Amino acid sequence: MKKTTADELAKFLGARIDGDGSALISGIAAPEDAGSEDLIYMDATKHRERAEASRARCVIVAEGVALKSKTTLTVGQPKLAFAKAAGRLREAAPIAAGRHATALVDVTAKLASGVSIGPYVVIEADVEIGANTEIGAFCFIGRGVRIGESCRLFPRVNVYAGAKFGSRVVVHSGAVIGGDGFGYVYGEGEYVKFPQAGTVEIGDDVEIGSNATIARGSLGKTRIERGVKLDNMVHVAHNVCIGEHTIIAAQTGISGSSEIGDHVVIGGQVGVADHCTIESGSIVGAQAGIPTGKKIRAGETVWGTPARPLARFKKQYAWFERLPELAERLRKMEERTE
Amino acid sequence: MKKTTADELAKFLGARIDGDGSALISGIAAPEDAGSEDLIYMDATKHRERAEASRARCVIVAEGVALKSKTTLTVGQPKLAFAKAAGRLREAAPIAAGRHATALVDVTAKLASGVSIGPYVVIEADVEIGANTEIGAFCFIGRGVRIGESCRLFPRVNVYAGAKFGSRVVVHSGAVIGGDGFGYVYGEGEYVKFPQAGTVEIGDDVEIGSNATIARGSLGKTRIERGVKLDNMVHVAHNVCIGEHTIIAAQTGISGSSEIGDHVVIGGQVGVADHCTIESGSIVGAQAGIPTGKKIRAGETVWGTPARPLARFKKQYAWFERLPELAERLRKMEERTE
Amino acid sequence: MKKTTADELAKFLGARIDGDGSALISGIAAPEDAGSEDLIYMDATKHRERAEASRARCVIVAEGVALKSKTTLTVGQPKLAFAKAAGRLREAAPIAAGRHATALVDVTAKLASGVSIGPYVVIEADVEIGANTEIGAFCFIGRGVRIGESCRLFPRVNVYAGAKFGSRVVVHSGAVIGGDGFGYVYGEGEYVKFPQAGTVEIGDDVEIGSNATIARGSLGKTRIERGVKLDNMVHVAHNVCIGEHTIIAAQTGISGSSEIGDHVVIGGQVGVADHCTIESGSIVGAQAGIPTGKKIRAGETVWGTPARPLARFKKQYAWFERLPELAERLRKMEERTE
Repeated sequence: MKKTTADELAKFLGARIDGDGSALISGIAAPEDAGSEDLIYMDATKHRERAEASRARCVIVAEGVALKSKTTLTVGQPKLAFAKAAGRLREAAPIAAGRHATALVDVTAKLASGVSIGPYVVIEADVEIGANTEIGAFCFIGRGVRIGESCRLFPRVNVYAGAKFGSRVVVHSGAVIGGDGFGYVYGEGEYVKFPQAGTVEIGDDVEIGSNATIARGSLGKTRIERGVKLDNMVHVAHNVCIGEHTIIAAQTGISGSSEIGDHVVIGGQVGVADHCTIESGSIVGAQAGIPTGKKIRAGETVWGTPARPLARFKKQYAWFERLPELAERLRKMEERTE
Repeated sequence: MKKTTADELAKFLGARIDGDGSALISGIAAPEDAGSEDLIYMDATKHRERAEASRARCVIVAEGVALKSKTTLTVGQPKLAFAKAAGRLREAAPIAAGRHATALVDVTAKLASGVSIGPYVVIEADVEIGANTEIGAFCFIGRGVRIGESCRLFPRVNVYAGAKFGSRVVVHSGAVIGGDGFGYVYGEGEYVKFPQAGTVEIGDDVEIGSNATIARGSLGKTRIERGVKLDNMVHVAHNVCIGEHTIIAAQTGISGSSEIGDHVVIGGQVGVADHCTIESGSIVGAQAGIPTGKKIRAGETVWGTPARPLARFKKQYAWFERLPELAERLRKMEERTE
Repeated sequence: MKKTTADELAKFLGARIDGDGSALISGIAAPEDAGSEDLIYMDATKHRERAEASRARCVIVAEGVALKSKTTLTVGQPKLAFAKAAGRLREAAPIAAGRHATALVDVTAKLASGVSIGPYVVIEADVEIGANTEIGAFCFIGRGVRIGESCRLFPRVNVYAGAKFGSRVVVHSGAVIGGDGFGYVYGEGEYVKFPQAGTVEIGDDVEIGSNATIARGSLGKTRIERGVKLDNMVHVAHNVCIGEHTIIAAQTGISGSSEIGDHVVIGGQVGVADHCTIESGSIVGAQAGIPTGKKIRAGETVWGTPARPLARFKKQYAWFERLPELAERLRKMEERTE
């Protein structure tokens, strides 16, 4: 942790400060776990008591909140400001330091300055890695891969041959980037493998969760645009394109050639079939299923399998819940009219 | 396998014995595959023929079952007794033996007596590992991790910095324990990472399946209490708490801050959204979806998305199945009343 | 890539050739990315313009399609022919070359000629590996495993002790083959592990996706018959049998002891409970859920949870969509008849 003062942090966050601006801040915590130098935040008035009872001296709050005997930093979005403050206060724990003697780095690989390589890493021929990127233990970086600057690959990530990463990409343990897509053609009683000869491109500031899988294109590319966040065990098939700043929760699967726009929010365990279009700004509820070729319009919120607009789903579902009652009303009317 | 006699095994299981108590038992098997010294069990009378046709001489049976020319061990729960007998008869195959020369163990790590470390293991600084724990090949044990006694980590398990394990914990290949949770705050058109600075604690006798992922807390802890069993590819998000002796089948995901009680049974591919409460003794059917903030009451059985009590689901579903018929009855009545 | 001519390729594919038979072909591509020596295909007349605009000189087409200034190879199934042509034109990139000095191969292991072993591989005692099989970096091959000829294990695959593979099996990164099944018996307030003492057998020409898991039998075997294709993150539980040339899409889970026939097609995120029977030639739609013990008849197509015949599902679902309207009609009639 880097120490700072409430005043300095207020300036960094563009916050209004009330109380002791010289108070030292050296960490972040939940209200219950905080020491006096830890920063906490309060984003709803129902948490006022937790904040007041905390040992923390400095609290990030929203407009209109005063806390007894605390130094408060008032901002528009307390949780956002807290996240930014944390990014400043915490140093990311190093994933690797220097270049471990057991790392097998092909002589043709080009490593920029400040690249760290953990133990038992394998880096194949013609790889290029940008400055200050960290590669954790047991990572496998296939032939010809390009990785940008300040990326962080946690221990045990596989990047297949030819994949391209932007900068500041974070990949968690067990993820597999650029493996073969699942493409076969059925003929004469068996499946013949369709060539999986394309590549995968990952934009800047993408984060990929543990045990996620992203397939290379069959012909052409799979593309994950900048700022995309993928949770654990997300599966992205061949030739999918995911637009900027889209976020996808755990265990969701996106089938081949589907196109997902920018700023889309997709819940957990969603299934998107092949050749779908999910336009920018739309929201897909958890466990929804989107059938082959379906288009979700920009800004729409959908739920259910097959997915439909949320308002419609809710109306249909409300009647589904009352089906036994409907059936009983029908029965009574039949009696009456006979 | 350790050899024993039917008499000794009956004493160990608290079983009543009929037949030859000196019969040797040296293994376990399915009835069809058993040799004469293998133990089998029979938990339903419909399997009587399979048991009688088996070469096995000793059979664990329930009260009231006599088998021709077999030595029977009569107990209340034959399958349970068989499982216990197997635990006594079978020696677990070693995951590692001694401390392999290629294991990279930081000099500050404290390994108790009888710890085995497989090849190409990485153990970082300040790790402590209890007596007789086995760490398989390619495991990565991050800085400051605590692992109890007699744990078994199969090859290729990642334990991130700071995680704490009890004793007799079993973790299967590909599991990732203590990775970052999926927390971001949206602001100014992009996602800012919320700090994932907490820890994860795993109780005694927990078993974690292959390729499962358990995230550390964001602030605070993710807790898996003792006796919990998680199947393959189960995903547990940050700050989740799973109570004692709860069992969760494959590919289920539990979102952030949800609390699951003791002795809960959760089927496969269930999705639990964030901030849910699933009280002790409840049962969640496979593929059910539990929406954000929902509470499942103690002892309740639920199914469907959104999940509701099973009896209600069944009633609603029965009418759903008859919807075309209901619609036809309505149409006829409209004809009649016009 | 191996160079060939249009004439030679036409002979290999059994295609009729129109145009310049001496045209050289040295690769495959999508129409937009193709160079003049790349082969493309066109399987629907709507793609005619893409094909005509391509720089590719040779195009595989269906009967009745003529393309201006192209050499065409006319076949019954253009996509199938293209896949076969790709198999001939492309050499699979090597996964490993020779036997890397860091590979730990037990002295009792038997490696046939042409076996390649990547860096940091662990091969335990009594393993046998057939000719020309490639084992990628970080693979773990447990005691007594048998692997056939010309298999390809991508980097970081775990094969537990005792598993048996046929020939030409392909396994992608992160897959875990032969781990313990999820079997416990509940008694006296906790779960006792049921023995997971069986094995797993994988037939010829099977392909297994990244991060997939296939459990060993508890007693007896888990079997994946020849030609089966499993996508990423597919979970196969203990004692499951999957018949020949069955294909299963990503994130699907098959629970214990279920039997799946030959030539079955299972979509993504499907859940098959335990002891189900899915007969040959049936089709299970994405996200469907098949309850315990259920039988799907040969050739049937099912969807939904619980799964039912597709035609029935569609009819029920159509009325579900119209539930608000049905309810309104019912209300009006109640008014009228009062």
